Amino acid sequence: MAIKRSLSIIKIGGDIIDDSVRLEAFYEALKTVNSPVIIVHGGGNKASVLQEQLGIQPQKIEGRRITDTAALDVVTMVYAGLLNKKVVAGLQNIQLDAIGLSGADGDAIRAHKREVKSIDYGFVGDIDFVNVDFIETLLSQGKTPVFCAITHDGNGQLLNTNADTLASKIAIAMTRLYTTELLYGFTKSGVLENMEEEDSLVSLLDRDQYAQMKKEKKIIDGMIPKLDTAFEALSHGVTNVRIGHTDILGDLTIKHTRLCL
Amino acid sequence: MAIKRSLSIIKIGGDIIDDSVRLEAFYEALKTVNSPVIIVHGGGNKASVLQEQLGIQPQKIEGRRITDTAALDVVTMVYAGLLNKKVVAGLQNIQLDAIGLSGADGDAIRAHKREVKSIDYGFVGDIDFVNVDFIETLLSQGKTPVFCAITHDGNGQLLNTNADTLASKIAIAMTRLYTTELLYGFTKSGVLENMEEEDSLVSLLDRDQYAQMKKEKKIIDGMIPKLDTAFEALSHGVTNVRIGHTDILGDLTIKHTRLCL
Repeated sequence: MAIKRSLSIIKIGGDIIDDSVRLEAFYEALKTVNSPVIIVHGGGNKASVLQEQLGIQPQKIEGRRITDTAALDVVTMVYAGLLNKKVVAGLQNIQLDAIGLSGADGDAIRAHKREVKSIDYGFVGDIDFVNVDFIETLLSQGKTPVFCAITHDGNGQLLNTNADTLASKIAIAMTRLYTTELLYGFTKSGVLENMEEEDSLVSLLDRDQYAQMKKEKKIIDGMIPKLDTAFEALSHGVTNVRIGHTDILGDLTIKHTRLCL
Repeated sequence: MAIKRSLSIIKIGGDIIDDSVRLEAFYEALKTVNSPVIIVHGGGNKASVLQEQLGIQPQKIEGRRITDTAALDVVTMVYAGLLNKKVVAGLQNIQLDAIGLSGADGDAIRAHKREVKSIDYGFVGDIDFVNVDFIETLLSQGKTPVFCAITHDGNGQLLNTNADTLASKIAIAMTRLYTTELLYGFTKSGVLENMEEEDSLVSLLDRDQYAQMKKEKKIIDGMIPKLDTAFEALSHGVTNVRIGHTDILGDLTIKHTRLCL
């Protein structure tokens, strides 16, 4: 059997894009990566800020944003427009031939509107299909795909999708052709025993310890869906899943959390 | 010499994207086109509306928008985000495998910030380079490129570019590989002798008549740069340049204005 080539999927939060110092550091770290790379970016709080500026009150249920038509327009503008093109232009500046994509572009990522059970999340997409062939065409041409987390349903409807989930789904799908690793860029150096102390880093986290830390409320809120998707990637063939500062791209001796089953 | 294949470059205004009936009609007309197509879209007044909603007063000098940092963010959101992804998702719905692009994506269109002479237009880009090889790669894979008029300078700076000019520059550059025709989708059926009367259509317009109509103030304002770029395309190897409703895509017997040298 031929040895598969390596591919890194890197998720960065919108907070990194908003911080010019950290964004520059991310670009510097990227230069040191030898394998092909796919970048997935989140939106940070920019969309909420814009909504408020426009007098639209951001609606959330259980920490998840409800995406009505007005909110979908806002996230499409911020994620697919402002942030995506800023990152692409920045990567072109360091001679990485980036191409920005929503799920609609090249039918890259297809999703369906989340079914209404107790809550109607609005135009929120759950991913059905990652177009591995299209993404591979871009990679084989030396392109660096940069995904925002806007997807489509194939019937003309754009959908707002969770960026952590998107990164995980792409990493899993690309295992068909590559040995993939997934890095969740994070504001802290990784999963911490005590959220207030950077020293309390958990350098290796397995499912049992994750369950225990959830039980002890050491892992709460947004970290739970993030770690759920991270473990999902690991259990579906992604070779390495790491959470930490993006600096580790260039230097894996920098402390971070690595997941294991 | 081998006969070159045909390629159509179609510019649509933001007003078409905002009008669901006209947008549907455009999609229907597109279905009838057999040759590969490149779409370039403008922004309409959506960016101005958003700027006003955000309390930013749109600034113009001689009818041209001045693009400061805040304005650049707005046009990037509206053109590259909202409008571009709406069109791409709509085309995917009719089984056209569209891919939305700014000039930064795949380094497709490089520009430089317009030099400051009497007026500093801000982050406005004048086009230097159309990446014909990249565009051809997409076309050869059956993709339909959909360009918004945001470009980049290769050094990380996004630039706001005139969509009519972009369409013309792309049409000219693609003549290297294709017999190209350029269609400017328009709110009227073409150039009119009397702007108030659709009956007064000029079905064939040459440079002399254009000069005469400008002199007589029958062609004014935004029509002048549009026709200048249209004639530029024709004088640089584009085979056919037409101005009219997008319905003519499917039926050239529908009245429109064709330019000739």
